[in-house]
Amino acid sequence: MTARAAIIGGSGYTGGELLRILLDHPEIEVAQVTSRQHLGEYVYQVHPNLRKRTSLKFSDPETLAAVDVLFLALPHGQAQKQIDRYTQLAATIIDLSADFRLRSPAAYEHWYGSAHGSSAWLDQFVYGLPELHRQELRHAHLASGVGCNAAATILALLPLTQADLIDRTQPIIVEIKVGSSEGGAEGNPGSHHPERSGVVRTYSRFGHRHTAEVIQELGLENITLTMTSVDLVRGSLATAHAWVRAGVTSKDIWKAYRQLASENPFLRVVKETRGIYRIPEPKVLAGSNYADLGFDLDEDSQHIVAMCAIDNLMKGAAGSAVQCMNLMLGFEETAGLDFPGLHPI
Amino acid sequence: MTARAAIIGGSGYTGGELLRILLDHPEIEVAQVTSRQHLGEYVYQVHPNLRKRTSLKFSDPETLAAVDVLFLALPHGQAQKQIDRYTQLAATIIDLSADFRLRSPAAYEHWYGSAHGSSAWLDQFVYGLPELHRQELRHAHLASGVGCNAAATILALLPLTQADLIDRTQPIIVEIKVGSSEGGAEGNPGSHHPERSGVVRTYSRFGHRHTAEVIQELGLENITLTMTSVDLVRGSLATAHAWVRAGVTSKDIWKAYRQLASENPFLRVVKETRGIYRIPEPKVLAGSNYADLGFDLDEDSQHIVAMCAIDNLMKGAAGSAVQCMNLMLGFEETAGLDFPGLHPI
Amino acid sequence: MTARAAIIGGSGYTGGELLRILLDHPEIEVAQVTSRQHLGEYVYQVHPNLRKRTSLKFSDPETLAAVDVLFLALPHGQAQKQIDRYTQLAATIIDLSADFRLRSPAAYEHWYGSAHGSSAWLDQFVYGLPELHRQELRHAHLASGVGCNAAATILALLPLTQADLIDRTQPIIVEIKVGSSEGGAEGNPGSHHPERSGVVRTYSRFGHRHTAEVIQELGLENITLTMTSVDLVRGSLATAHAWVRAGVTSKDIWKAYRQLASENPFLRVVKETRGIYRIPEPKVLAGSNYADLGFDLDEDSQHIVAMCAIDNLMKGAAGSAVQCMNLMLGFEETAGLDFPGLHPI
Amino acid sequence: MTARAAIIGGSGYTGGELLRILLDHPEIEVAQVTSRQHLGEYVYQVHPNLRKRTSLKFSDPETLAAVDVLFLALPHGQAQKQIDRYTQLAATIIDLSADFRLRSPAAYEHWYGSAHGSSAWLDQFVYGLPELHRQELRHAHLASGVGCNAAATILALLPLTQADLIDRTQPIIVEIKVGSSEGGAEGNPGSHHPERSGVVRTYSRFGHRHTAEVIQELGLENITLTMTSVDLVRGSLATAHAWVRAGVTSKDIWKAYRQLASENPFLRVVKETRGIYRIPEPKVLAGSNYADLGFDLDEDSQHIVAMCAIDNLMKGAAGSAVQCMNLMLGFEETAGLDFPGLHPI
Repeated sequence: MTARAAIIGGSGYTGGELLRILLDHPEIEVAQVTSRQHLGEYVYQVHPNLRKRTSLKFSDPETLAAVDVLFLALPHGQAQKQIDRYTQLAATIIDLSADFRLRSPAAYEHWYGSAHGSSAWLDQFVYGLPELHRQELRHAHLASGVGCNAAATILALLPLTQADLIDRTQPIIVEIKVGSSEGGAEGNPGSHHPERSGVVRTYSRFGHRHTAEVIQELGLENITLTMTSVDLVRGSLATAHAWVRAGVTSKDIWKAYRQLASENPFLRVVKETRGIYRIPEPKVLAGSNYADLGFDLDEDSQHIVAMCAIDNLMKGAAGSAVQCMNLMLGFEETAGLDFPGLHPI
Repeated sequence: MTARAAIIGGSGYTGGELLRILLDHPEIEVAQVTSRQHLGEYVYQVHPNLRKRTSLKFSDPETLAAVDVLFLALPHGQAQKQIDRYTQLAATIIDLSADFRLRSPAAYEHWYGSAHGSSAWLDQFVYGLPELHRQELRHAHLASGVGCNAAATILALLPLTQADLIDRTQPIIVEIKVGSSEGGAEGNPGSHHPERSGVVRTYSRFGHRHTAEVIQELGLENITLTMTSVDLVRGSLATAHAWVRAGVTSKDIWKAYRQLASENPFLRVVKETRGIYRIPEPKVLAGSNYADLGFDLDEDSQHIVAMCAIDNLMKGAAGSAVQCMNLMLGFEETAGLDFPGLHPI
Repeated sequence: MTARAAIIGGSGYTGGELLRILLDHPEIEVAQVTSRQHLGEYVYQVHPNLRKRTSLKFSDPETLAAVDVLFLALPHGQAQKQIDRYTQLAATIIDLSADFRLRSPAAYEHWYGSAHGSSAWLDQFVYGLPELHRQELRHAHLASGVGCNAAATILALLPLTQADLIDRTQPIIVEIKVGSSEGGAEGNPGSHHPERSGVVRTYSRFGHRHTAEVIQELGLENITLTMTSVDLVRGSLATAHAWVRAGVTSKDIWKAYRQLASENPFLRVVKETRGIYRIPEPKVLAGSNYADLGFDLDEDSQHIVAMCAIDNLMKGAAGSAVQCMNLMLGFEETAGLDFPGLHPI
Repeated sequence: MTARAAIIGGSGYTGGELLRILLDHPEIEVAQVTSRQHLGEYVYQVHPNLRKRTSLKFSDPETLAAVDVLFLALPHGQAQKQIDRYTQLAATIIDLSADFRLRSPAAYEHWYGSAHGSSAWLDQFVYGLPELHRQELRHAHLASGVGCNAAATILALLPLTQADLIDRTQPIIVEIKVGSSEGGAEGNPGSHHPERSGVVRTYSRFGHRHTAEVIQELGLENITLTMTSVDLVRGSLATAHAWVRAGVTSKDIWKAYRQLASENPFLRVVKETRGIYRIPEPKVLAGSNYADLGFDLDEDSQHIVAMCAIDNLMKGAAGSAVQCMNLMLGFEETAGLDFPGLHPI
């Protein structure tokens, strides 16, 4: 059984990554990819990796035909305007923008600065991180994507929250280092290569919108996400500082990590004592859906540094979205997501 | 029917790339991967992309058991010392070093500076570039690998030589820009990041050993390969300057390129008039087996610039080797080589 | 005696580099720096290296007051429109755009595609490369800048042309690898970091406009400049392939290089047999006005590879312009240009 | 009055940077530069930026003659073995290693894991950060260097500690992102370009030795330094998370920053509301002795993020050392340190 899929907003980085995955997905036929800006161009003219892989051209989003599954990869704020229309076109929808990640209209308004345009739909969506909502996704028709930094942060802390190891009276500080693809395919003065090359730019100290997802999904209130751009295209590393409860030992923490990794096909624990790659690092994850997790505990102070590395376009966007689709449509959870990444890169 | 494969020298970059491909190859079971230096370590401790993909450990090359196909990924000069032994262990052998690329013992001695250690074997090997030797490979048991820069140069010029368009009385100058993985997994003072970052280093002006392969395979004598290291990990771009024969037009050249690309699954012609990616570029090929070809002709002077971009570890090493294996063992030529590369990267 | 200087077009990369040099120049007072786009902003808000070094703000080019020396750092095509006005404002003018580099109106029209707007002025300007025109510059009031790639090419070949060593019946092919600052401060889709990072992009195979300067200044007709963008911000390496006349030896060539370097304070010969830095490389020249020269001769074929590395914003733009000014105003030739560059970088 | 200087350990990165500065220092004559490894080579063969600037060769450290000021740029642990000898050779000594940064032998042993070899000398040295010890340095004969990460951390927090704004009951977490030159001129497996390029590697989560200097100099006990390597050669950015005392406002903080910057020639406050460079970033500081400071306060929680960017080889090593020398020898504090850095880079 093959499902027919369409991608709205296929010329951006997330759209292109969805397309790369779906073109090789054993259960999917890509019916349509839209782009207003590149209407009529071959998709490989924008995404040069897909040359000789498809003769699809970008089509007009207004002429979208019905499909089994619809991926929305539009700029934030667009999906909420047309969600009624989209639900007429496909039984299964995954929206990769920020429009349907939060359940609470008030939270949306607080973090995004204006009222949600279709707030009645908010509680119809499942937050699209399978490591949190695998069972719900198996029965869902609507899923959101994830914020890439939210995904890295949630997965960095998930072993600790699931096993209830964190001292919630203490602050949690998450320092996230990100590559340039996180800003999307449209350039800006700060993304011009002479200005962006070699950069170490702490561009958001407080109040990053992805914080809202972490608060919603992990129930942590006293948490700060601080974002620093570094010289990398794909990748996000979350380094989370927290404190574990009195009495919690390294052994307890190891157990929590191992259990989570054993239950989730794309989670790996990286904590080696030799070699170059002893801890999670994003560069070797480019193109892969893995999230690499690690930690270090200072036993004197119960201060823990929990790390998660991902490819922001994969586990932080398109990869998690396809993983959700696999669950929603009853496919193998890992279908289409088998690229392991490269070494060296 | 599954074939059993082993890799001798699996901790290097070529060995790691072979392993990545073969672990996901539909027809192959990887029986053994050797490394003296990392004996007993999990392969994922050296190649972090393979964590959770295999529980193989590096084994001792001395204890190699018989397999169906054996890949030799040793430093140059090693395979020729033990080729008698290796041929006892596997009916099909692909040697990725420089040891068996040249057919002539004299040429080997000229370019490598010492007599070959097993020259009687030289004419038993097929040069492992399927675009040149597809039919021979289907019946071969022994194949060499390719020099990555030789592969880029040969493929840059192949449309022109196959259609006999080049004026052979004129010099051919090939300027090749390469990434740092070409130097292998062992560091040296010049590969230390502070010295290698941002480099534009024309480290070989004349006499690069890969020239010998180009001369042998294309029959071009008056050719110079000049090598420049640039800031990139994977990738090689050959920019070849030649002159086409009097009367040859752009139309003739287009025809030659299109025909070659239509006959070879991993060759693509890149010659666009809009967008960012109008010409071959190596960065979008990381992990892919494609060779992207392009050209530009100055019709006043018949001077042609022919370009070929590859991933030096794939089309320039492990990818071509697996493609050879597929032909030698009767598998689908593209089996295991379907990763299209990433955009952006 | 201090001279008063102004910079028209001070918010671009060349303007910023001029400003950095002139603010520390022992004989110069910077009176005015203009920018329409950043009018009223402190110059350090655009050029962050100059914070705490100057309280200058960008002023309106329309309100320019008379000065002793005027630097024009405008986009190409602008200076020729107002050259009459500018010559009223300053006795000494150095135009860093392409507007006054060529002496021949016909050549300008051929290479730039439209008639020159003030062609009567063309023969009033001296081409601003002191290594070619030192004596004329000492008596000149008007000088052009240099094309950065032209400068690298001219200096790569200058030891050979001055000593008349080149076989002019043979083609000359110059492969130039350049950093991203060469494109200027305004971004474009191809300069967006995710697309520009790790790039090896042979963006101009033939017909680069800087070729016209090389033809004019060296009298070489059969020469091709081919341009490849690499991952670097500042720097240009010209690798020139030529043939020397029959009988010319390495010793002759060494002599030519040594003589030229001894006569020119910013030329250095780099030809070592050990260490990491054996040949010219641009990365260690960032911020410096040096041009590093080197060569390699294949004595069998008389094929020579002549190399020149520069910082495109210094020796290829602002540095040469200040060096010209020093000559034109009778200052020490090296004044203000003493920064040697960094190692490592 | 010119002072004669010598550098012990001149082939490393810190030694090379000292040499670059001192060769152009108006009050200094460089008498000798030693290197066992490169004995007899011209210094420009190792530090290619210095070609045509000096004909000095590396000499034998055993044959060191008396000088006015001696810089020790040896690997950690070496200076303490010969400090008696060195003090016979020069009245003024600045040791850039970690050997004499800590005043307490117990603290040294705790952080460095073995007893100090010349602990009697420890209290003779002044910690070489002029922003902390300007007056003492004017009368000192012995000064230590600074740990580059300690310097970035101390300067990030100094406006807050000097004005007593920090709530010392709360933890302080300092996330430091560093370039590859911090590891020194000797390579290791992790510094090999294919492994180091594009890296985001949180290589030290707790217990970095530079923490000891921060504790000693700022009197802060509850502080963690976490180190992440990023793709950059020169530069260190400290992003410090702390809490200010109840009632402290942004206005108080601004006042503290402005005052500190006004008192210290190399401190700058970077806090802009437009442009690309709104906050401190290390890339534009390469080669400069500036430390750029900035902050952001969350007024709801009193959580402050205080940032400091430096060039680790300048303000974090050689630059501060020369600044110390200037104070110790009665020169202008900024002498020789006037390079402002580059934009773009």
